Amino acid sequence: MSDRIPTQIPDLTLRFATEADVGIILAFIKELAEYERLSHEVTADEDTLRASLFGGRRVAEVLIADLRTAPVGFALFFHNFSTFLGRPGIYLEDLYVKPSMRGQGIGTALLSFLGRLTRERGCGRLEWAVLDWNEPAITFYRNLGAQPLDDWTVFRVAGPALHALADRV
Amino acid sequence: MSDRIPTQIPDLTLRFATEADVGIILAFIKELAEYERLSHEVTADEDTLRASLFGGRRVAEVLIADLRTAPVGFALFFHNFSTFLGRPGIYLEDLYVKPSMRGQGIGTALLSFLGRLTRERGCGRLEWAVLDWNEPAITFYRNLGAQPLDDWTVFRVAGPALHALADRV
Repeated sequence: MSDRIPTQIPDLTLRFATEADVGIILAFIKELAEYERLSHEVTADEDTLRASLFGGRRVAEVLIADLRTAPVGFALFFHNFSTFLGRPGIYLEDLYVKPSMRGQGIGTALLSFLGRLTRERGCGRLEWAVLDWNEPAITFYRNLGAQPLDDWTVFRVAGPALHALADRV
Repeated sequence: MSDRIPTQIPDLTLRFATEADVGIILAFIKELAEYERLSHEVTADEDTLRASLFGGRRVAEVLIADLRTAPVGFALFFHNFSTFLGRPGIYLEDLYVKPSMRGQGIGTALLSFLGRLTRERGCGRLEWAVLDWNEPAITFYRNLGAQPLDDWTVFRVAGPALHALADRV
């Protein structure tokens, strides 16, 4: 496998996922959803992931962390855009490290690489969302210098409400 | 101007912005920032906006609402990605209607069109963030069927903290 990105952790490398990784990406998404107690929200399958991540119009990118040749974690991200900065940012949708592999700096290695990518691509910010009960993650993120945007709330329209909105005018 | 999208409001049409609209887009961004009491965060200028919105790699799209030929509001959005759904969504970064033009359904027309676009592009969700003190906006969004994601908080790394994170590993 080419284009392995070295880290300071022995035997740990990062790489951009390819279509051959769709199975492990879906497995990681399901493991993360289980940890977040949101398994009921997962409807993704290999076909939808393959189309979105490796089809004609790629909407997100995936980093895989390998310990030797075994995938132990991943980060899925895309570009957002700040009107105030007038330039794009990086939004980290999912960050996951297998439970048995935590505490070794694998999550930090993934986030630090994303920080470098944010800078190299001329983006102004690296952002992500955290569940409010997930104290271990919040402590981890604060220790890396991240700040919570406590005065903002995300709103969502989906399902029947989306159809009602779409058909309104 | 071609490709005008009709609305149910007399004389109001929507259209996708072109490079000629960079000046009005920046003016709207600054008016919105002033309303949000965040003018100090605005560093965007016409050059950065032009490069991001109309350059080689377009990271966001802009809808303009015209009353006859006068721009009265805008919506800036991009595609995000839900790993749980395995497909993209639409994220609305900015929605703005000039204060003197509010209460006539212009914001609803913009959001309803975005709802149709979300559906037509095979996306699962339309999302955006609201400042917690902005009660008029929150009431407006709730009345359109949007639900707050109250148990999530967005974290951000930017500025010196971003460099420290990038240089960590």
